[in-house]
Amino acid sequence: MNAGNLVNNAQVGSAAEAIPAPALVIDADAMRRNIERMAAFAREHGIALRPHAKTHKSAAIAKLQTAAGAVGVCVQKLSEAEALAAAGVANIYISNEIVDAAKLARVATLAGCIRLALAVDSMLGIDRLAAALKAAGTSIDVFVEIDVGQGRCGVAPTAASRLAHQVVSHGTAQGDVYGAPSGGMRFAGLQAYQGGAQHLRGAAEREAAVRHAVAGVRAAQAGITSAGMRCPLVTGGGTGSFMFDAASGVYGELQPGSYVFMDCDYGDNEAVPHAPVFEQALFVKAQVISRGYSHAVVDAGHKAHAIDSGLPRVWSPAGSSPLDFTNGGDEHGILRPRPGAAAGALPQLGDTVWLVPGHCDPTVNLHDNCVLVRGGLQQGVVEAVWTVDARGCLG
Amino acid sequence: MNAGNLVNNAQVGSAAEAIPAPALVIDADAMRRNIERMAAFAREHGIALRPHAKTHKSAAIAKLQTAAGAVGVCVQKLSEAEALAAAGVANIYISNEIVDAAKLARVATLAGCIRLALAVDSMLGIDRLAAALKAAGTSIDVFVEIDVGQGRCGVAPTAASRLAHQVVSHGTAQGDVYGAPSGGMRFAGLQAYQGGAQHLRGAAEREAAVRHAVAGVRAAQAGITSAGMRCPLVTGGGTGSFMFDAASGVYGELQPGSYVFMDCDYGDNEAVPHAPVFEQALFVKAQVISRGYSHAVVDAGHKAHAIDSGLPRVWSPAGSSPLDFTNGGDEHGILRPRPGAAAGALPQLGDTVWLVPGHCDPTVNLHDNCVLVRGGLQQGVVEAVWTVDARGCLG
Repeated sequence: MNAGNLVNNAQVGSAAEAIPAPALVIDADAMRRNIERMAAFAREHGIALRPHAKTHKSAAIAKLQTAAGAVGVCVQKLSEAEALAAAGVANIYISNEIVDAAKLARVATLAGCIRLALAVDSMLGIDRLAAALKAAGTSIDVFVEIDVGQGRCGVAPTAASRLAHQVVSHGTAQGDVYGAPSGGMRFAGLQAYQGGAQHLRGAAEREAAVRHAVAGVRAAQAGITSAGMRCPLVTGGGTGSFMFDAASGVYGELQPGSYVFMDCDYGDNEAVPHAPVFEQALFVKAQVISRGYSHAVVDAGHKAHAIDSGLPRVWSPAGSSPLDFTNGGDEHGILRPRPGAAAGALPQLGDTVWLVPGHCDPTVNLHDNCVLVRGGLQQGVVEAVWTVDARGCLG
Repeated sequence: MNAGNLVNNAQVGSAAEAIPAPALVIDADAMRRNIERMAAFAREHGIALRPHAKTHKSAAIAKLQTAAGAVGVCVQKLSEAEALAAAGVANIYISNEIVDAAKLARVATLAGCIRLALAVDSMLGIDRLAAALKAAGTSIDVFVEIDVGQGRCGVAPTAASRLAHQVVSHGTAQGDVYGAPSGGMRFAGLQAYQGGAQHLRGAAEREAAVRHAVAGVRAAQAGITSAGMRCPLVTGGGTGSFMFDAASGVYGELQPGSYVFMDCDYGDNEAVPHAPVFEQALFVKAQVISRGYSHAVVDAGHKAHAIDSGLPRVWSPAGSSPLDFTNGGDEHGILRPRPGAAAGALPQLGDTVWLVPGHCDPTVNLHDNCVLVRGGLQQGVVEAVWTVDARGCLG
């Protein structure tokens, strides 16, 4: 299709240092610890875990997460679900709206192949989905999305029961979300994700945002119950809020994504006491290709890392790096020593520089492959090269 | 490799309106006019045109440009050159530095397959390139990059002659850059691109930046000449500065990239009298998937368009759109009516919205395919679906 795979021609067993730059590199030890920590948290709190695969877009990582106890994964787009299903992921929730009739026909087809769920927030979406499922003779779990503070998708909590009723009216049974499919459309509960809460820096701010979201969930639940329906599950939460979502008592399932890799943006959040801590596991390996007297230029720019949450930072085994990464455009990054940096802090021509992305999800989406390293970045070896199966799956 | 091609399953001959969203859509009529306008400018000014293929990363578009008179194309990365060469592009200049020995071996191999050029700005880079060429028995054109004001890659103009001398000392002949290869490394001239000048809004500011760059070029040329060498060609320039570069008399070749598509950032530049004007030819097709009382949510976010030069704008056939695109994260965009917008300005569920990207190059790099439309966005039909051959080619 395209030649992106020429880039990441890393050899399994070779030194991490020998990975051709720029490359998306995963510290596989750190990633596995992150996966286990979140799984342990969910187990200990008796809450289901459905990690968001929009972060990694990789069937292999989805399988590590389900092997650790996750019930399945979330995605944001139908084509992501199709790509992961084709690579063997059997339980996927598209936690987003689809209203296009041609896409809903694909949803209905996919629902005949794997355990599939979809979010809805409109009568039009529900009616078109029902028609597609009827035509295909397949069944799906449906979550009604409510807006719990972000102001993006989702209906007002008080409007949830009207949509839930429409879902139920199309369904042949209101089965348990984790029960066996019984045909048609099943009302599985509420999608209640507060994306705006995830990067509020202060722990108390995030807790307050979750408190507001939970009030919305309770209002929606009350409306559904008083209309004579059952609300089997509330799903939501992210890497910045999961500890508060779990403590609320209303969420039955958590959807964190970034915890598997982490990034500068999540790393800057104030830690929450007693909550699990996640390690930086995602890096962009870059190389110095030009060297001035007071700056060095690396071969990684905006085409190698997303900058919607700021520029990447230079990783250092000592913790804080003596180097600032400054904007060098799409193809380059410019490194300068920070005030007070030791002489010799600036790397030389050909040197490797490890970058920590500002935002993991859209950074991963730039790369066709990720290179897994075992034993640390500097001394480690390449364990595997994995395809980013759903890279570029936007629709 | 990955399943990105599931996204752009547009059918040739179908209505543009039926292209599955989100999709990268090219107004093919506007693109062809842009290609011809820049080619005509170069012809009329007696200057060579080598468009930058980092913008489109597509062999098919490179071939349209060379058919219109371009001598070849530029790229920024070796893997881009490999991808375009594999797709039939026969004359490529990698206008960037490579110092990695393994990559330089690939450069030397590629130089045996196509007419290839490379920029250098270090003795290390030159010496390693010479060793690689010797091992492969191939020849290449080498441009010494000088920093003409951007402060990124390139040596000071006064240092150019030292590097030129090193190139010549490795070469078997100092052939003409457009002559037949004669073996070894040939000093082809100077790479003098002022990336920082391209988006200075005022025409006079850009002209002043080019004047400064030209002074640097003249200083470098003087050093080379007085060292007894010839400087066959000066190459550089971009969509924001080409008219001034051409007028300077020192540039023999122009490297504009974005003119083929244009974007909000270039569109905001003050026009230069008598210079050719380029049309917006690149769009992201999006669809409304959620609709609130006062906002609509489309299915295109930072994974569908780059935001390093700002968020996209909503295209309108009437010129200025009554809608603002606001940040909805990686997967969504949020549309709101501007103050004073007519009632009904906000689109409905399922409606198509055409977005103009802030920056064309990194937006194209997010998509595996581009859909060419003939006859306009609204009434047009799909003419072709082309692969973005070098998407993700970062190294």
